[in-house]
Amino acid sequence: MQEINKDKQLINPLKQRRQKLAQLIDSPVILWSGKAPSRNFPSNHYPFRANSHFLYFAGLPLENSVIHLEQGKLTLFQDNVPPENTLWYGEPPTRELIAETLGADYAYPLSELKNYTTNAATIAVQDVPTYQQQCQHLNRHVPYPNELEGKDLALAKAIISLRLIHDQEALTEIKKAIAIAIEAHKTGMKVTPKATTEAQVRGAMEGVIIGENMKCAYGSIVTVHGEILHNDKYSHSLNPGELLLADVGAETPLGWASDITRTWPVNGQFSPSQRDIYDVVLAAHDACIEKMHSGVEYRDIHLIAALIMAEGLVNLGILRGNPNDLVDKDAHALFFPHGIGHLLGLDVHDMEDLGDLAGYEISRTRSDRFGLGYLRLDRPLRSGMVVTIEPGFYQVPGILNRKDFREKYKNDVNWDKLQQFPDVRGIRIEDDVLVTETRTEVLTANLPTQGSEIEALCSN
Amino acid sequence: MQEINKDKQLINPLKQRRQKLAQLIDSPVILWSGKAPSRNFPSNHYPFRANSHFLYFAGLPLENSVIHLEQGKLTLFQDNVPPENTLWYGEPPTRELIAETLGADYAYPLSELKNYTTNAATIAVQDVPTYQQQCQHLNRHVPYPNELEGKDLALAKAIISLRLIHDQEALTEIKKAIAIAIEAHKTGMKVTPKATTEAQVRGAMEGVIIGENMKCAYGSIVTVHGEILHNDKYSHSLNPGELLLADVGAETPLGWASDITRTWPVNGQFSPSQRDIYDVVLAAHDACIEKMHSGVEYRDIHLIAALIMAEGLVNLGILRGNPNDLVDKDAHALFFPHGIGHLLGLDVHDMEDLGDLAGYEISRTRSDRFGLGYLRLDRPLRSGMVVTIEPGFYQVPGILNRKDFREKYKNDVNWDKLQQFPDVRGIRIEDDVLVTETRTEVLTANLPTQGSEIEALCSN
Repeated sequence: MQEINKDKQLINPLKQRRQKLAQLIDSPVILWSGKAPSRNFPSNHYPFRANSHFLYFAGLPLENSVIHLEQGKLTLFQDNVPPENTLWYGEPPTRELIAETLGADYAYPLSELKNYTTNAATIAVQDVPTYQQQCQHLNRHVPYPNELEGKDLALAKAIISLRLIHDQEALTEIKKAIAIAIEAHKTGMKVTPKATTEAQVRGAMEGVIIGENMKCAYGSIVTVHGEILHNDKYSHSLNPGELLLADVGAETPLGWASDITRTWPVNGQFSPSQRDIYDVVLAAHDACIEKMHSGVEYRDIHLIAALIMAEGLVNLGILRGNPNDLVDKDAHALFFPHGIGHLLGLDVHDMEDLGDLAGYEISRTRSDRFGLGYLRLDRPLRSGMVVTIEPGFYQVPGILNRKDFREKYKNDVNWDKLQQFPDVRGIRIEDDVLVTETRTEVLTANLPTQGSEIEALCSN
Repeated sequence: MQEINKDKQLINPLKQRRQKLAQLIDSPVILWSGKAPSRNFPSNHYPFRANSHFLYFAGLPLENSVIHLEQGKLTLFQDNVPPENTLWYGEPPTRELIAETLGADYAYPLSELKNYTTNAATIAVQDVPTYQQQCQHLNRHVPYPNELEGKDLALAKAIISLRLIHDQEALTEIKKAIAIAIEAHKTGMKVTPKATTEAQVRGAMEGVIIGENMKCAYGSIVTVHGEILHNDKYSHSLNPGELLLADVGAETPLGWASDITRTWPVNGQFSPSQRDIYDVVLAAHDACIEKMHSGVEYRDIHLIAALIMAEGLVNLGILRGNPNDLVDKDAHALFFPHGIGHLLGLDVHDMEDLGDLAGYEISRTRSDRFGLGYLRLDRPLRSGMVVTIEPGFYQVPGILNRKDFREKYKNDVNWDKLQQFPDVRGIRIEDDVLVTETRTEVLTANLPTQGSEIEALCSN
């Protein structure tokens, strides 16, 4: 209960979100929070994570709950915990107290929901049993992202237009998530020189996040094999001369995410070859951030990163030719194959449950170009958006050994020169950035990016 | 790949398990491993946890895989990772290499499974989309635990008879999970005097488990409100004079669990009232372990704990009367409302996905007695079983304030005396115990249980 009461300051911003939604959509809206999936037997479940759209309007991570939104009013549907469960779970707050806390206008048990379903729009949740309830309650197929139409599509677009531009309360939460992720990264750098495995560094970093009563916003990447982009293994030993790439973010108890990557030397000192590439990635990172403000196309920011990477790699002798031409033919993407970043908010890839509907401006679709197809965001930037900027350099065997690429880029890559950088498997530098009218605010600025500063943190 | 290769020593024991299963059941058997559920959007999923029955025979936590078992032979169905995914996930081991590692006799892509489904028995998985695949592939309703019949029931019973009695490889894994959980508890005790919140202690403890590349076997309980039995909140501050109850266990990469609880003073020193109750719980714990060996009914071990608790509470003046009579009328259960423990193995409540089929000897069902209804295990103990022993004392408001209990036990409880123990909200001492012919082996013996030893660990 004391946790619930703390959040009373949330009511007004939540009401504003609900009123804004009412201005954007005529249909009543029903959003489900979902349930924690079972892990290996029913009572051993994964930690509950409420649906993000539900969280945006309800504010609290209430399990197995439903909200009905209409004309700015919120009706909460939730069952009180049965008395026999209080032995196991204590005396939880009542529906009435929760309703008061989140500023609900009405509150009923779940059995009443059936009287509120007429003509309601909704968005599919990830939790499959809850998804099936959505279909049952609404007595229709609830569309998956690629099937959205009619009132559900209108709802998705309305929510996107709200969630794209963060209000002060959202920014406050994101900053809390960032502050703890920064502590985790500093801890990671500090423990690495004495650690012998990736897992030990991960344990220290996630221990910081758990210790602040937060969760990891996503499966951490903590690896000396940064060239495996979504590496979820932590079993490698750490050897002097290797780089450790850590992509670790926190999530606040109310569900807001941070997303930070740093790459540091296992022994605390970059080798000259590592430092050369690191500085190329950092130059791309800095150039992107410098160019960002409201109105700029995010895709152009991606292309700035590509160009600076290409320039840097030409200067190092790894690529050959005119940097603009190299980008036009996607030669940069041999080493920087992913997008420059993505939306950040309640989800680490914000609203990715809606496919590309949030990330891509209407009428735009993914490019089939190798160097653009993985871009998750293609919209003009607007004040209040939070996005990541995360250029990287990787030597991915699955890319560099492709015969068609070897042929296509045979004159663009100096393969012999590349052999002088064997100790650079993967480097990424990722910050979280708030877009404003005239400039950007690097929300993660308290965590250094300069190589020398990173080295200093490693030796602390 | 290197992770895969390490486990080659697993092949022979796995083959033995498969051959033993073949001796117990005639039908072919198909077991699904399941998939990781999505968290808030499709690509942000919970950590994968393979179905335990699959793990028992396949040995490796392979996602989205199926095994067919017949006459001791294993056929693996698994799709190779598509080449375009190697950018994100690296070069994974091929189906052929995996098949070799786990000693499969044949290996095919998943599309071949349809030719192997005739007359096959199975067990429902927790992951709902995979469960739906089970029903589709077998072209029938796959029964939930309470519906088991025919060949599926025969399969469940056969697997139970195997998994109840751990082989050496299982014990080796359980001991690994225990060793790390012990380190986590020692770390928890060590950091508590300087910690200010439950979350900080949890972060330090789980950091140890993650740091050893293990997972938590279940949602940790780390709380100064031990009277909430399944407390999954970590937001309380720690105050001198309080007790911290930590129920934290590890799970090895191959899926085997440990389950340990200790209760220690926030300031490192038990108060006299805390020590009095602690020693009662410890006496119950020790008496149970002393009486356990093959042939003894686990229910009788539970009743020994109840009796020793009742005796201790009579000695402290909290209960009044003859301890045997008090147990007969469930007065002990006012303070010790749960069972003395449960099976431990691949699941922390081993095989609880089968309901009570594993925990309860055939023809036995849960008692409706308040003091016995929560007992999860009611079988004669046999050599090779691993069970937990976890007596506890709790002042649960939802129990102690029940009007009917106040009336029923008005002469059995000295309510005034109880007021002298306000700083004992919850104490539990939980060890993992291997049953043998003539004695028991406390697998968690390296973590002390004596109050003075606990105090010593807190002050280190």
